[in-house]
Parts: sequence; structure tokens; C-alpha cells
Amino acid sequence: MAYKIDGLQYANWSGKIFEQMQHGGLDCVHVTIAYHENFREAVLNLEKWNSWFERYPDRIMQAHYAEDIAEAKRNGKTAIIFGFQTPAPIEDDIGLVEIWHRLGMRIMQLTYNNQSLLATGCYEIEDSGITRMGREVIAEMNRLGLIIDMSHSSQNSTLQAIEYSTKPIAITHANPNFWHQAKRNKSDIVLKSLSHSGGMLGFSIYPHHLKNASNCSLQEFCDMIAKTADLMGDTSSLGIGSDLCQDHPDSIVEWMRNGRWTKTLDYGEGSSQNAGFPEQPDWFMNNSDFPNLEKGLLKTGFSQTEIDGILGNNWYEFFKTSFGR
Amino acid sequence: MAYKIDGLQYANWSGKIFEQMQHGGLDCVHVTIAYHENFREAVLNLEKWNSWFERYPDRIMQAHYAEDIAEAKRNGKTAIIFGFQTPAPIEDDIGLVEIWHRLGMRIMQLTYNNQSLLATGCYEIEDSGITRMGREVIAEMNRLGLIIDMSHSSQNSTLQAIEYSTKPIAITHANPNFWHQAKRNKSDIVLKSLSHSGGMLGFSIYPHHLKNASNCSLQEFCDMIAKTADLMGDTSSLGIGSDLCQDHPDSIVEWMRNGRWTKTLDYGEGSSQNAGFPEQPDWFMNNSDFPNLEKGLLKTGFSQTEIDGILGNNWYEFFKTSFGR
Repeated sequence: MAYKIDGLQYANWSGKIFEQMQHGGLDCVHVTIAYHENFREAVLNLEKWNSWFERYPDRIMQAHYAEDIAEAKRNGKTAIIFGFQTPAPIEDDIGLVEIWHRLGMRIMQLTYNNQSLLATGCYEIEDSGITRMGREVIAEMNRLGLIIDMSHSSQNSTLQAIEYSTKPIAITHANPNFWHQAKRNKSDIVLKSLSHSGGMLGFSIYPHHLKNASNCSLQEFCDMIAKTADLMGDTSSLGIGSDLCQDHPDSIVEWMRNGRWTKTLDYGEGSSQNAGFPEQPDWFMNNSDFPNLEKGLLKTGFSQTEIDGILGNNWYEFFKTSFGR
Repeated sequence: MAYKIDGLQYANWSGKIFEQMQHGGLDCVHVTIAYHENFREAVLNLEKWNSWFERYPDRIMQAHYAEDIAEAKRNGKTAIIFGFQTPAPIEDDIGLVEIWHRLGMRIMQLTYNNQSLLATGCYEIEDSGITRMGREVIAEMNRLGLIIDMSHSSQNSTLQAIEYSTKPIAITHANPNFWHQAKRNKSDIVLKSLSHSGGMLGFSIYPHHLKNASNCSLQEFCDMIAKTADLMGDTSSLGIGSDLCQDHPDSIVEWMRNGRWTKTLDYGEGSSQNAGFPEQPDWFMNNSDFPNLEKGLLKTGFSQTEIDGILGNNWYEFFKTSFGR
């Protein structure tokens, strides 16, 4: 069985996009349902998803466990896994972790770019790691079967999350720093620690994480995957987390970067001259381009088993272990 | 004019306590209206204060500016200044700083014991200081005339708050570490930096901050004030911030320490054997004992001007400068 899974997307969801997921053969997508939304605001986003599940029952279904992904595949649908890119929806309340688990949340970043109540983000000057509350929340996520995602976290936070968590963690969407220096990309130390602990890395196709940005070629991207496999030992920790942000107005990337924490404008990975969403590379404009990845990986010399792992089977096994059934 | 001001209290407020404030000659008390309450919950606490102002118009009035303290004194009332012991009521939203200022908030701690979105608390293992959002909030508090309170913050956070703030900051309730080693008490470095920058220290009479705890004598307390004046240069940065927590059930100290961040029990400055509120020293059981401080300071050899400063005039001048009129 070859599952096709994308480890992170945040699109301006629509029937068109769900159709593109089907055309691209995606059996499962981990979707972001909140950035800086508090509990009540994130519930509103979840209500929107409920309306899409009701409206597009032949295209998408919610996944609570890995077996739901198998069911989606059997029925030609895409399974949707909910995740948060910041811990804002649990506010300062550890009790909300279980509430969110019941509502179907399965993956949560401990930080976005800034310091959170749980850990340090990759844009802070000082990198103090996991806080007192962070340790408690990691234990609670472990207990319930929620995946800890450190994509936007600082190095110390990520290494400590790997250490404190009794289960492997994920970096759902980032690339190696050796390939493209960016605050969001990860050092060799982090990547090795991640693979040694059984964690997962999802390769990002968001242009700010790519060498040559929007002009990065499919071959360059696949060569980077090959080098990362060498660094991390093999391909078993590797997946895709495309970070596809399709059809959004630029006000959304402004919200992602600024939330409500500043009265000025923070440009994050962009700049005042390049403030909006960057242009996607031409080989990954939307979900229907997912098969291009298989072509690229084949040309790069990966075996079919390795390719199947990278394009979905590794995420599937990781989700199965992490979610508990 | 000799104002009598207490720089921090958090009591189970009642007509009895407001009467004791009058009997003790207090012209002004900075009261905590929130610990871990979010915006809406803190508004509920403010509603309670509105009902007390309505019910006890001859005893208390809200102070927005120093001139309100003068008015309270003229009318034999106690002026009440609102403060937060954590930034929880602004949630993750810098826009709420101005909303709270309009509602009368005048003093806010950037952290309680734990890491906040703004700074590091004194109980964290790593002390990373002020965060990106913390810098923005400091600037906003400076703009509006809100006092930055670092009583529960870590050393680096406190030193950085002094550095980043364009106005002097306060430690409303703590004692020097040289006198009694406690995570909540402050190092010589912090105290010197505070006085050099024109900030204020309010001496705490909360037993966990006192040498010999509940058995600390008035003389020991006043001798400590004299030594601190030597360290900090003179008495101009000194005041009282009694941290009086009167008439509360122990469930309140549990809330203060645990909020919603842990599923276990944190005992803070106490222990499992000594979990509740500690017993007050017999010379400061409630607000009517405030005159005892004057007796103690006189006996210790302070001049009347120095005593008037420590017991209220220093806070009055600091409030006047900080609040903007």
C-alpha cells in the first residue's frame, strides 16, 4: 500500500482545492486550523471544517486515527487531520489539551516564531527552551496521543522537546539549514537528534525555505532530500510537509506573522519589499502537482519503497504510532 | 503632606477591610485585580470593584492619577489603584493594553512565577529575559503611562525591563536577597540597577519573603529597610508593598500558584507540609496595623522625612511621574 500524505498545508480551502487533492492522489493532509486564534476563535474555524465535511462528503473526511486514512484511501477521499501552528488555542489552560483532542486535534506546534507559554520560537534572540508549563503540556500530549510539532521552534526548544517527550516528535514543515540558511530551517544537530529519536521531518516547498526560493527546481529539491537522507541515516524519518498556502490574500500571511503581538509590522521570512505570500515553484502550484514529486524522486535514484515512504507511508506509520491506533 | 500608600495588596475585599484601611490611615492601596484571569474574567473582577465603589463611597474611590490620591486623602478615603500580577488579562493582544488603561489599570507585572509571553518568571530554570512581544508591550505601557512591575520576574527579565523601559519601573512587593534568600527576593545587582534608574521597591510583609517568616519582628524588618537604603543609596526608591493577602481561603493561594498551567500541584514558596497562606507577623495582621511601621522606622533611626517617603510619599511621586499627571 502506498499512501500519499502531505504533512502540512494551510490553504484558503474550497471545493476546488479538495478536488485538486483528489486529482493529486492525496489520501491525507494535515491541515492547520489555527495560528493565533484563542480557544473560541479556533472552535469557529473547526465549525467551518464541519461545514466543508458536510458539503463535500465525496472528497474529504476527518481523520482521528490512522485507520481513518486507510478508510479515506479505500473510498477515494482525502483524510483531513487537524493541527495548530501555535498553542494559542489552549490559551494558558492545560485542560484544553484534552478538550482539543476530543475535538479531533492531533498535531500542535509548541511555538510559532515567538516565545509561547510553552517554548521558544525561532525568531527570539534568547533561546531558553521548554518552560515549566511546556514540560507539563508535553506530558499531557504524550498521554493523549497528540503529536508535538517543532517546525517554528528554536534549536534548544526542539532538542529539549525531543528529550522530554516520551514519544517521537515531528517537524512537519521545514528544510535543512545546510541547504538553505533560514531561521525556519533546521541544523544538522536537530535533524540527527530527530531521526535518532524516531521523529519525522516533512520537507517544505514554501519558497522562503527553498534554495533559490520560487525558482528552486524540482531536481534541486530532490537532491536536497537525498543529502538529508544521508545526514539522517536513511529515508525512514522523511516525509513531505509542503506548507502549501494556496489562494490566500496577503492579509493572511500578515496575520500569521503579526497575530496580535505587535503594533508595528513584522515581515517574518519576507521583507517590506517582499511582504506577501511568495510565488510557488512551477512544479508545485497546487495539490494536483503532488505526482511531480514522485517523478523527481525517481529521477534522483530513490527506490520505489523509499519514494513510497517519503510521499506518505512514513507519515502513515508515524501517525499510527503517535495517535494510538 | 505625608501620604500613606501600600504598593500591593490582594485581600478578600470586604467592608471590614476597607474600614481597616481607613483606620490604618491609608490614602492609597494598589490592589491586584487579576492573577491568571483572561480578559473577560478580569473584567468580571473589575465589575466586583465597581460594586464595592458603589457600596462604600465613604471609604474607597478609584484612582486613575496621582491627583485622585490627593482627593481621597482630603476626603478621608482610600484611593484604589488597579494592577495585574500577570499579563494574562491582555492575553496575546497588545491592543488590550490601551483597553485596560482606559478601564483604569495602572500597574502590570510582565510575569508571575512562570514564563509569560512577555518575560521570564523567577521559577523558570532558564532565564531568557524579555521576549519580542515583551519589548513591544513595554513600549506600549511607556506610551500610556502604565507601571511595569517585575516583582515575580527573573533577574535577566528585570534588568532588561529596566534597560528597555524609557520610564523607571517598579518591584512593588519583594525584599532583598541579602536578607532572606528566596526566589522572589531580589539580588544586590537588581536593587542597585533599580535605584540608579529611578525605580521603586516596595518591601513585602508576606512571610515567605521575611527572615524568620511569620516570626520576623518589626525591628528585624526595619533593620532590613535600613540596610537596603545603604545598598540603594538612600530611601528615595523605597516604599511598602505589603503583599497583604487577608481573609482568603487557601484555595486562592493554590490558584495563584497553579492557575491552569499544570495538572499536578505546585506549592510555589510553600511546600506540601505548608501549602496554605502563611500566618501574618503579629505587627501587621491587617491594614489597621500600618501605623506600626512608622513606630518601627522611628525606632530604627530614620528621619521623619525619610519615614514619610517610605510610607507613601515616594510612591506618590512615582505614581505622579508614571501615570502622567
